[in-house]
Amino acid sequence: MKLEENQIFNNYFKNLSDRERAVFEGGITMGALFHQFVGAPISSKNKEIMEKSIEESMKNQPCVEDIWVEILGAPENDKYISLSGEMLNVKLKIKINNTLAVLKLKYIKELDYPLMYVEEIL
Amino acid sequence: MKLEENQIFNNYFKNLSDRERAVFEGGITMGALFHQFVGAPISSKNKEIMEKSIEESMKNQPCVEDIWVEILGAPENDKYISLSGEMLNVKLKIKINNTLAVLKLKYIKELDYPLMYVEEIL
Amino acid sequence: MKLEENQIFNNYFKNLSDRERAVFEGGITMGALFHQFVGAPISSKNKEIMEKSIEESMKNQPCVEDIWVEILGAPENDKYISLSGEMLNVKLKIKINNTLAVLKLKYIKELDYPLMYVEEIL
Amino acid sequence: MKLEENQIFNNYFKNLSDRERAVFEGGITMGALFHQFVGAPISSKNKEIMEKSIEESMKNQPCVEDIWVEILGAPENDKYISLSGEMLNVKLKIKINNTLAVLKLKYIKELDYPLMYVEEIL
Repeated sequence: MKLEENQIFNNYFKNLSDRERAVFEGGITMGALFHQFVGAPISSKNKEIMEKSIEESMKNQPCVEDIWVEILGAPENDKYISLSGEMLNVKLKIKINNTLAVLKLKYIKELDYPLMYVEEIL
Repeated sequence: MKLEENQIFNNYFKNLSDRERAVFEGGITMGALFHQFVGAPISSKNKEIMEKSIEESMKNQPCVEDIWVEILGAPENDKYISLSGEMLNVKLKIKINNTLAVLKLKYIKELDYPLMYVEEIL
Repeated sequence: MKLEENQIFNNYFKNLSDRERAVFEGGITMGALFHQFVGAPISSKNKEIMEKSIEESMKNQPCVEDIWVEILGAPENDKYISLSGEMLNVKLKIKINNTLAVLKLKYIKELDYPLMYVEEIL
Repeated sequence: MKLEENQIFNNYFKNLSDRERAVFEGGITMGALFHQFVGAPISSKNKEIMEKSIEESMKNQPCVEDIWVEILGAPENDKYISLSGEMLNVKLKIKINNTLAVLKLKYIKELDYPLMYVEEIL
């Protein structure tokens, strides 16, 4: 049974609207993704499998409907670096009943900051 | 200047109510805290400084008003273990304008799961 | 160019024998692997891609000849947990000139500890 | 009892000289430190406690005699960034019987790489 089908689990979220719960769960997954994988050795050789692996790992998190991870700037030519937040481009969908929140993580040049935000709530 | 005083930053959150933004930022900080520090070597010797260090690190995150971290079960007698999510007891306050969200991370025995949830929104 | 083909890099290791350098690089990669990936959400659904992704990430590290990662105890039935060190079973080969070090990470029940050790140096 | 006073533990290292074991344990601790703490939110406000907390956490690891951690480039003025490997300046002492290995982690400009190496073995 999925955690989000467990009534004891859901009872903890009765004080939130579906929109509030969607962005709460989305925030958790974004923070988790960033702080779990930043630092990992990355090159053009393992870029694709790392993207896919982050996606599949995060699909375990409660209420994740879908997720796309892109890693920018992985070095070529037998070089590697540590994955940084600035290299991450993520789109995440969280579903609570009939509410769908679409969240983004991407580097914003004007802020010099890898920003997590809510693109839209449907 | 704090990020949350930057208008470019705040423009990304115009589509959220203060309550929604509070739980979104709270979710990010909870996910970040868990996935950054789980795995760290911990014993009764470094329990206190680790608690304080996690608190001070997370106070950098946008909109964090205050945070308390308690680590349970740190071993005595020159033994150490890797910090696990089950050992974390966290209370987090996020402030957006006049809205204050109080969030918790704690291990819930019935779920066998370190749960992040919103205790109340004031 | 690989880092280990760079003379500036290699100059830092002139004070080590090939055996010493092999176990030093092996220790780094074992410590890196453990503390990078412990905490990641894991289930039977993403076990295989996570194993492969850890392998490919660690192959970027200097002098890694080959690596095998097995994750034990990933839960079935839509449940997931945080990856712990106890779940990791790793075999790592480090090559320095004609010296090959074979290293292991596995949970040792008598020690209740996920142990990193050198199996043999050839 | 410390792990390194446990005979079952020590039996796994009978195939290594004291020098080899010292650099092996040193490599583990360096890799662990880097991949555990890279990504953590850091500013001038929490720089000092983070340095101390990393030191105290790593002193739990087997055979660590002493360790000094310096974090460079922590931003002032209410700004923060994610800790990167390039910001770390670490000196680590590992003791095996009468052998003392002194290890370093520091950013090497010519390599554009945060290098871990053995400074000397006494």
